[in-house]
Amino acid sequence: MNSPWHISILTLFPEMFPGPLGHSLSGKALENGIWSFKAVNIRDFAQGVHKSVDDTPYGGGAGMVMRPDVIEKATLSIENPGRKIYLSPRGKPLTQKLVQELSEEPALTLLCGRYEGVDQRVLESQDYEEISIGDYVLSGGEPAAMILMDACIRLLPGVLGNEDTVSEESFSSGLLEYPHFTRPAQWTSADGHIREVPEILTSGDHSKIRDWREGQAESVTKARRPDLWNIRENARLSGKKPKK
Amino acid sequence: MNSPWHISILTLFPEMFPGPLGHSLSGKALENGIWSFKAVNIRDFAQGVHKSVDDTPYGGGAGMVMRPDVIEKATLSIENPGRKIYLSPRGKPLTQKLVQELSEEPALTLLCGRYEGVDQRVLESQDYEEISIGDYVLSGGEPAAMILMDACIRLLPGVLGNEDTVSEESFSSGLLEYPHFTRPAQWTSADGHIREVPEILTSGDHSKIRDWREGQAESVTKARRPDLWNIRENARLSGKKPKK
Repeated sequence: MNSPWHISILTLFPEMFPGPLGHSLSGKALENGIWSFKAVNIRDFAQGVHKSVDDTPYGGGAGMVMRPDVIEKATLSIENPGRKIYLSPRGKPLTQKLVQELSEEPALTLLCGRYEGVDQRVLESQDYEEISIGDYVLSGGEPAAMILMDACIRLLPGVLGNEDTVSEESFSSGLLEYPHFTRPAQWTSADGHIREVPEILTSGDHSKIRDWREGQAESVTKARRPDLWNIRENARLSGKKPKK
Repeated sequence: MNSPWHISILTLFPEMFPGPLGHSLSGKALENGIWSFKAVNIRDFAQGVHKSVDDTPYGGGAGMVMRPDVIEKATLSIENPGRKIYLSPRGKPLTQKLVQELSEEPALTLLCGRYEGVDQRVLESQDYEEISIGDYVLSGGEPAAMILMDACIRLLPGVLGNEDTVSEESFSSGLLEYPHFTRPAQWTSADGHIREVPEILTSGDHSKIRDWREGQAESVTKARRPDLWNIRENARLSGKKPKK
């Protein structure tokens, strides 16, 4: 058996992990040794009687900043850190391509900030890569770390049953996914409408179904995400494969 | 006391909640009655001996699709659903502006898909808004629901001590945040480098500090997120306030 995908998490709330990752797909994969984690309590590396991990920001302003010396000690305590990531809204955006890349690393260290953030100097001296899961602000890095882990875990070999599931889903071809339909074929919703599955999907004509789905994926992407659509069009026009 | 921000969660894994939201800031806010939630098990609305909630997709393909009749019954069981949201990578992107808006709603219903997704017809008949937390694929909607909730909860009145914390952070002015520094002012990192806090931050000159921070926020945004920078520049040139 291969050694598991190993994640070290630096956090003030080690008890949050594995949390939701202990259930369902990722929970089973954890039991099966496909991935493993260690949550390291940053507070264990604080000094002084008060064990403080943070202090007021230089230059003034609200909130507290996590001390560089404490974060450095906590980081250096990790034996096999792998790529070191600080989860922050200032980071580069997490994309499916980056998820794929991170799921192929043997080990990662995820630093979860709280309060206003972490002293900039330790991010530089310890070579932390900053990654953002989206353009919004969270209470801390822990929920973001869970997202990064969840997205990676499902790509680890042996986690999903069927490889096709990954190759046809959203972002794999730079498009959002086409809509899905299942039984009943004719369904009367509570408002009294009879709602049928699009006829083409029950036709058995696989090539027409493929074309229909592609058209649907294109039109939902154009309508909802012109940004993704433009990236794809520019790549197509310049004769390259889409990067997303 | 006001009635709490109430979230109904439709999920196959009700035991995942509150999970990480039961700790720290959001945990305290839950205890204090600032928000409340009910996790509804979708499986309770399945019919037949097998209690199946999903079936194979019409038109073929990998994975399973959640049935419209089961999702409709589960949705209709909620007394005060508020705005209904389906968490999906096909949705409109979650932004801090949308987080602010959702935190001001009295109630939300969050539908968490698993497998390939949910039958399109029930999303239409039940008027689900589709929201995406980022351009990556998760094992299911549950971790995404936690992100949406976490981001909203910290904005609820009485959760964060200091209102300033919100007004100066990332995205509030269409920019990423400036870097933070705290004690020690002169810090020797493990590589032997002496790393000092930028002099200006200890100068006591508040107007210079403000300018320096604004410059830092601008340059990190330009370098890391040209997309955000362009939105801001276009808004500035057309004389409008930035929308992010």
